[in-house]
Amino acid sequence: MKKKLEEVLGKVAAGRMSPEKALAALKGYPFKDLGFAKVDHHREVLKGAPEIVFGLGKTPDQIARIAREIVAKGSNLLVTRVEPEVFAGIKGRLRGAVYNPAARTVTLVRTKPAAGRGTIAVITAGTSDIPVAEEAAVTAEVLGNDVERIYDVGVAGLHRLLHHYDRMRRARVVITVAGMEGALPSVVAGLVRAPVIAVPTSVGYGASFHGLAALLAMLNSCPGGVGVVNIDNGFGAAFLASLINHL
Amino acid sequence: MKKKLEEVLGKVAAGRMSPEKALAALKGYPFKDLGFAKVDHHREVLKGAPEIVFGLGKTPDQIARIAREIVAKGSNLLVTRVEPEVFAGIKGRLRGAVYNPAARTVTLVRTKPAAGRGTIAVITAGTSDIPVAEEAAVTAEVLGNDVERIYDVGVAGLHRLLHHYDRMRRARVVITVAGMEGALPSVVAGLVRAPVIAVPTSVGYGASFHGLAALLAMLNSCPGGVGVVNIDNGFGAAFLASLINHL
Amino acid sequence: MKKKLEEVLGKVAAGRMSPEKALAALKGYPFKDLGFAKVDHHREVLKGAPEIVFGLGKTPDQIARIAREIVAKGSNLLVTRVEPEVFAGIKGRLRGAVYNPAARTVTLVRTKPAAGRGTIAVITAGTSDIPVAEEAAVTAEVLGNDVERIYDVGVAGLHRLLHHYDRMRRARVVITVAGMEGALPSVVAGLVRAPVIAVPTSVGYGASFHGLAALLAMLNSCPGGVGVVNIDNGFGAAFLASLINHL
Amino acid sequence: MKKKLEEVLGKVAAGRMSPEKALAALKGYPFKDLGFAKVDHHREVLKGAPEIVFGLGKTPDQIARIAREIVAKGSNLLVTRVEPEVFAGIKGRLRGAVYNPAARTVTLVRTKPAAGRGTIAVITAGTSDIPVAEEAAVTAEVLGNDVERIYDVGVAGLHRLLHHYDRMRRARVVITVAGMEGALPSVVAGLVRAPVIAVPTSVGYGASFHGLAALLAMLNSCPGGVGVVNIDNGFGAAFLASLINHL
Amino acid sequence: MKKKLEEVLGKVAAGRMSPEKALAALKGYPFKDLGFAKVDHHREVLKGAPEIVFGLGKTPDQIARIAREIVAKGSNLLVTRVEPEVFAGIKGRLRGAVYNPAARTVTLVRTKPAAGRGTIAVITAGTSDIPVAEEAAVTAEVLGNDVERIYDVGVAGLHRLLHHYDRMRRARVVITVAGMEGALPSVVAGLVRAPVIAVPTSVGYGASFHGLAALLAMLNSCPGGVGVVNIDNGFGAAFLASLINHL
Amino acid sequence: MKKKLEEVLGKVAAGRMSPEKALAALKGYPFKDLGFAKVDHHREVLKGAPEIVFGLGKTPDQIARIAREIVAKGSNLLVTRVEPEVFAGIKGRLRGAVYNPAARTVTLVRTKPAAGRGTIAVITAGTSDIPVAEEAAVTAEVLGNDVERIYDVGVAGLHRLLHHYDRMRRARVVITVAGMEGALPSVVAGLVRAPVIAVPTSVGYGASFHGLAALLAMLNSCPGGVGVVNIDNGFGAAFLASLINHL
Amino acid sequence: MKKKLEEVLGKVAAGRMSPEKALAALKGYPFKDLGFAKVDHHREVLKGAPEIVFGLGKTPDQIARIAREIVAKGSNLLVTRVEPEVFAGIKGRLRGAVYNPAARTVTLVRTKPAAGRGTIAVITAGTSDIPVAEEAAVTAEVLGNDVERIYDVGVAGLHRLLHHYDRMRRARVVITVAGMEGALPSVVAGLVRAPVIAVPTSVGYGASFHGLAALLAMLNSCPGGVGVVNIDNGFGAAFLASLINHL
Amino acid sequence: MKKKLEEVLGKVAAGRMSPEKALAALKGYPFKDLGFAKVDHHREVLKGAPEIVFGLGKTPDQIARIAREIVAKGSNLLVTRVEPEVFAGIKGRLRGAVYNPAARTVTLVRTKPAAGRGTIAVITAGTSDIPVAEEAAVTAEVLGNDVERIYDVGVAGLHRLLHHYDRMRRARVVITVAGMEGALPSVVAGLVRAPVIAVPTSVGYGASFHGLAALLAMLNSCPGGVGVVNIDNGFGAAFLASLINHL
Repeated sequence: MKKKLEEVLGKVAAGRMSPEKALAALKGYPFKDLGFAKVDHHREVLKGAPEIVFGLGKTPDQIARIAREIVAKGSNLLVTRVEPEVFAGIKGRLRGAVYNPAARTVTLVRTKPAAGRGTIAVITAGTSDIPVAEEAAVTAEVLGNDVERIYDVGVAGLHRLLHHYDRMRRARVVITVAGMEGALPSVVAGLVRAPVIAVPTSVGYGASFHGLAALLAMLNSCPGGVGVVNIDNGFGAAFLASLINHL
Repeated sequence: MKKKLEEVLGKVAAGRMSPEKALAALKGYPFKDLGFAKVDHHREVLKGAPEIVFGLGKTPDQIARIAREIVAKGSNLLVTRVEPEVFAGIKGRLRGAVYNPAARTVTLVRTKPAAGRGTIAVITAGTSDIPVAEEAAVTAEVLGNDVERIYDVGVAGLHRLLHHYDRMRRARVVITVAGMEGALPSVVAGLVRAPVIAVPTSVGYGASFHGLAALLAMLNSCPGGVGVVNIDNGFGAAFLASLINHL
Repeated sequence: MKKKLEEVLGKVAAGRMSPEKALAALKGYPFKDLGFAKVDHHREVLKGAPEIVFGLGKTPDQIARIAREIVAKGSNLLVTRVEPEVFAGIKGRLRGAVYNPAARTVTLVRTKPAAGRGTIAVITAGTSDIPVAEEAAVTAEVLGNDVERIYDVGVAGLHRLLHHYDRMRRARVVITVAGMEGALPSVVAGLVRAPVIAVPTSVGYGASFHGLAALLAMLNSCPGGVGVVNIDNGFGAAFLASLINHL
Repeated sequence: MKKKLEEVLGKVAAGRMSPEKALAALKGYPFKDLGFAKVDHHREVLKGAPEIVFGLGKTPDQIARIAREIVAKGSNLLVTRVEPEVFAGIKGRLRGAVYNPAARTVTLVRTKPAAGRGTIAVITAGTSDIPVAEEAAVTAEVLGNDVERIYDVGVAGLHRLLHHYDRMRRARVVITVAGMEGALPSVVAGLVRAPVIAVPTSVGYGASFHGLAALLAMLNSCPGGVGVVNIDNGFGAAFLASLINHL
Repeated sequence: MKKKLEEVLGKVAAGRMSPEKALAALKGYPFKDLGFAKVDHHREVLKGAPEIVFGLGKTPDQIARIAREIVAKGSNLLVTRVEPEVFAGIKGRLRGAVYNPAARTVTLVRTKPAAGRGTIAVITAGTSDIPVAEEAAVTAEVLGNDVERIYDVGVAGLHRLLHHYDRMRRARVVITVAGMEGALPSVVAGLVRAPVIAVPTSVGYGASFHGLAALLAMLNSCPGGVGVVNIDNGFGAAFLASLINHL
Repeated sequence: MKKKLEEVLGKVAAGRMSPEKALAALKGYPFKDLGFAKVDHHREVLKGAPEIVFGLGKTPDQIARIAREIVAKGSNLLVTRVEPEVFAGIKGRLRGAVYNPAARTVTLVRTKPAAGRGTIAVITAGTSDIPVAEEAAVTAEVLGNDVERIYDVGVAGLHRLLHHYDRMRRARVVITVAGMEGALPSVVAGLVRAPVIAVPTSVGYGASFHGLAALLAMLNSCPGGVGVVNIDNGFGAAFLASLINHL
Repeated sequence: MKKKLEEVLGKVAAGRMSPEKALAALKGYPFKDLGFAKVDHHREVLKGAPEIVFGLGKTPDQIARIAREIVAKGSNLLVTRVEPEVFAGIKGRLRGAVYNPAARTVTLVRTKPAAGRGTIAVITAGTSDIPVAEEAAVTAEVLGNDVERIYDVGVAGLHRLLHHYDRMRRARVVITVAGMEGALPSVVAGLVRAPVIAVPTSVGYGASFHGLAALLAMLNSCPGGVGVVNIDNGFGAAFLASLINHL
Repeated sequence: MKKKLEEVLGKVAAGRMSPEKALAALKGYPFKDLGFAKVDHHREVLKGAPEIVFGLGKTPDQIARIAREIVAKGSNLLVTRVEPEVFAGIKGRLRGAVYNPAARTVTLVRTKPAAGRGTIAVITAGTSDIPVAEEAAVTAEVLGNDVERIYDVGVAGLHRLLHHYDRMRRARVVITVAGMEGALPSVVAGLVRAPVIAVPTSVGYGASFHGLAALLAMLNSCPGGVGVVNIDNGFGAAFLASLINHL
């Protein structure tokens, strides 16, 4: 797969390619219609990422068909939000697929992705945040990054957090994952030089309002250098971290 | 002022005093009508507190008249939320009144209040939180407590916070005051043995939503031992802290 | 268990212990990795509390393994939010564990906790608030406190509430538990001298918004001396009350 | 003013009057166009009320012109939400108008309204709630009701509230006015047999969210017999109370 | 049952009865402890209502035991929010109980309640609002009122609504029940002279936010004379309407 | 101004024009840089609209400069949200500009816009909604439409609303403008065949939450055929209505 | 079915028909009572629409009975929000009914509806938005419109969106369906001349808050010409679009 | 300034420095007490940033004193949120300070900051977003980055946005600034390979809810690679972008 959509668009913008040729060059390329879903190779082309399928709400049959289409193209595959019983209906149809029950991901890596330049640390406040963190960690790995997992080191026990100070500060990008009061990124960003990506989780009850409390806390994070993604969006955090780590 | 409302109510509940006598005993006692406001001596009687006036929205004339009524009874006085220009209109009419511009309080202490048993630490995350913290500190002092002020030690700079670890852990009660992400009480409660009272402040902008972010964070505080009061309610935090410190 | 984390940190802060020695002294001590969860002895060390496990969302197997680890250390155990069917999967593996179906707690007390200095009153507005109140009461008892239960005395029937006036005012700390309009702590704080901890519950429907109405009411409580914890957080209220009662 | 819109509509519905005649009968009657506002005599006709003008945001000139139009028709007049400086610009142009600065109302009563059958009690939790309560009290009086004012008797001081028990229970309708935690109607409705109308006020700060906390509390009021109106809507509460008191 | 709590309280307040005698007179009277619930006769005494049980979340066994206790006292019984399968577990144990599946109520009327003075109209906007309306209608009937049901006459079809104009205006009190945009009470209050009680329902989806849209609309109702109760609170609306109708 | 951006884009999409030529053709055309603002001729080109300037927050000088640029191009001009004192600083510099104080608009029409095919009715619930309605009416007129103004006919007085039934049903598009409970579009859409555009206004107080109540009501409007725009967005409603009226 | 309610109302308003005759003429006409629901022919009469049943929450038996009543009248039928298992209980009783599983609709068209004048484009951002879009598309078709489906062309892949530019700009009305960030209508409205109807969907998680994020985005859409309907309201969007397309 | 706090902490963590020495080394270094504010050199030390002062709510005198303290240390200075009238009171006291009225920043750069490795593009949707964008741009420049400003290219006019495609894709990091519907980052992230930082602004009215609409949209951004900061937080976006650009 040589031509990049980016190149085509760039040529059109620069007036070096006519739109007819551009459309022709892109025909049959950016997406393929499966009836119920279009498989898009756009992200791979633009961002160098594997094909990614958001599994939530899809049947095993739908996931299997999309996944096979992707794999047939020779692309690497990442499916997120796959419950074990869904994977049970997939695995026979998708040779080589690896299921990670903590991350609820299905991966199938054919070609080694371009390596990130440093390590991405994934830090959680509690044990309940681990599924989101694992989604981030597996995503980051599939995207070619080394991942340092530092789990269950919430701000209520600073001794735990400081125990891992060296591992944190060696990371090129840091992902912090926390529910409840969402204080972790503020403390971590005060300790490291790396950019910090904050993932609020829906862990908690009552006035956590399904992650709203953590989300607001992270958006108000006092030290600079923190970017926030959607609640429980481990994938999104890792995707952003990987973009940065490949710069 | 010897008889306590509490005693009267207790006698009535225990059947040792008739309601007629109770009402007679309390006549002219628990409040005095100034037309625009009733001066209530109830809190003083019940909780051992000075008379407290919430100054916000009252004119200098109203405050002065209420204050003089209180002082005439021999009670100590605390007026909160008094802007400097309001105090300018009061001070000539209230001999001995002390204005604290940082706390926006007017105090007039005639009789030494019962001393608290330990120290109350008042800790802020930032400099903008100081007015609320000072309201708490002055309130605590008027209520008879020693106060340890530890300001501007937010979680973004753990080195500052840990610098004051000894002062914090010597306190019998800790008040934490923070806006924005409101992470301070979670970190402090993980470090000290004392009960922690958390005051969210309206410091911040955008997604702080006037203190909502800090409030929610504090309610979700992971370590145990944290009780939360209303946004910017320095007085309420100190009142609770003083009750605890006088146990 | 003699050495306290607090002491170690204190020595480090005071410069009387090198960090190497501190880390060595704390090695193998503050938490133990079970793979899916770290068992933390930190709260016990710092606050004198038993080991506490938040049971919600954990499998019987996970709870049993964590609990046995704790018990093996010689600590007392409290597991909250355990449904009966979950306990059914635990009890064979945890000799001596006591299940309280009203509080949904599992407790295993080996060593008598330090006794609190007074009584903690736990007061509910309605019968639906009792599960949260029982979580508070059991927690308080496990932490060494005498508990006075005063249930179903909401403000709509003042005669019920006043009927228990004597029991309330004898308490050293008062926990009020209420859903719907959440008016109970305001009324109680006006009657007693003790600090009042307010627990909003998710009891109600419609405009109760799962406890938000009660939460806001409690934060706006007019009389001083009220600290609020998260919706349905009976454990947190009791933990704070016990800290105060052991002062 | 004899003919009632109600009668006309009733005849039309019953087929005893043709629409032409109805429209003719109502011509020039239900509203008069002043260019910037239509003066509606509809509420007077339907509900037996005086003409009511919501003064907020209107200029003295606009109010004066509307008011004179109303008075010229022989109707009684009530203008709500009139600040003193606005009334200063009106009074010279509206002979006989009475301004109540506490209620911020302008009234001009020509013909004695039909008397309500009992008393309407207006009860406030605090002194800051008085402006809203006075709007209610003046409205009720203009609508022909006897009003019993019981102010500054919030639930934090039950002794004050119970002091007025006899006055409360003699009322045929009770209006309760409270901001902050809004607990007053719940307590009062537990004490009286009369219907209770609850007016949340915007009194408070922080987590009162401009009256939202009190509003939610009142909607969740546990004892039956409570109807709620908009925040600060003293007029609406009195209007409803008067309808009930005239049944 | 002759003595009224109200009388007792009144005598105490007036100083004509000592508290000992009052408590003695009330002993064993206002509530009876069933362990899991206190059966309260207070509302009956104070408001002339039957005993009311909120059935939601109670087991058939709990409801049956509470109900039999009430019936044994000779009181009338109303249980709300009872699903058919719950009633199936009750009916064998509660002779004479009547289940209304539309209203989800269980009633058992032994003594004819005091008759209301007029009719209560219950009006719904749509068919989905009928369960809430039926809860209101059955409650009103059990409380001794004649009820006029006018269903499915939302403001989108004014012809339907006006078709019932005569029935509406004959009512002494009007209850309006509506979800979605909640416009019904505004239109009805513009048409009738009676007080209007507005019940928002959770009928709708998306931006109805479970009844919030209807609730806010009703609180902002432009014509006077509207009181609002909690979302889906058919019982509360009828209880208030009945109080008014018995004045 | 003959060439349309639409044509250019269409040709590019159809491969009949190279991007170079397209960019050349559009050079200096779609926007002109004034330093602080780009004057965009895009909407005019695409939608046949005059140039529109959102005046809020702009200085008289900025508005005058943008306006003169537009007029110099020969376009018609509409500036919205212009307060009188702002226009005072503009009028000397913009010959022929017409200020409408009710609508707070500045218009300058050089060439007669294409006429809409029918009438647009603009209906308000109250007098306070008129400024938003006038913004809509003036916008619609500048866009070439006949406008029928029907003001102050809220649902609380159906007699007023029905009085104008004939005028409403003759309109090809109806714009309804209402604050508070926002019930007007539901009632109107039940009466007319035309598409109804609903504009919530921020008119109201308390639980109107600055127009949120009206907005939610309109989004939940029961009868079909209602499209909603932003709170107070009279311009947007008219722009949409005009597009429809020119179909 | 010749006479239109509109005509009758018009005559009454114009004084050309007495109300008695109007009511007689409409007797037995606008609705028929089925006990649990009134079948309304009003929308058909007023708007030229088929009879529409909102299926959510209705049993197969209820839907079948309503549907047969409608069909017996000779009207076309559209039932929305019908899950497959519900249709399974209907189809044997409703000869000729067509079920569309993607749209979850049941349709039965007897008489060809009046044709719309142009095409309605239905555009979705993602594949998860398709059910809502299909509800819109099927509704539009039943109402007599040609529909152009353009699915899965979200703004994250502009190449996909622009690929369909020609199909979009040929539409007379455009319906955009999007969840998550809801950016699609803003981009589309900047590209086409047609009115755009925006349907937010509840697709997403976390901070999408069940469609609130998309709803707010659409209400704030920058380019003119966008009207918004309720979250997931595909039917409402198509109903409005069809009204416009039949002008 | 050679020693880095990071080094000191690292040595302590690695056991190569005793805490006494660390505290001694940091004495007088990380912050200096000015009474009303502590000047912190921590961020400079940790992140390589200049000293940053958040100017909002500070008096000219306070800013001047803090600024001079910073400058005296030899650090570069950035003060954000400074209104022109505040700067007027500063400039005489702070030689060499440069005020940028669009960005509302005061800068004083003594030593050339380390250069970022690529360009940071700052893109706005509208002209009203420019102040926030300028705060970002000036911050980025002070931190040593080259900035490419691309303003007023909102998604409503794709032609403008695509016009700048080449400039966007050359950037190493992209900052997008948008209010209202906040769609810009979704579109941009679909076009570029660089990490995108999204800044919602409070630009808009009504249902923008002071930036909430844009914030939610950005958090739900469909394409990967987007991190969000607080509403109007231009500084925070630039700080994060600069960290990334210096990797």
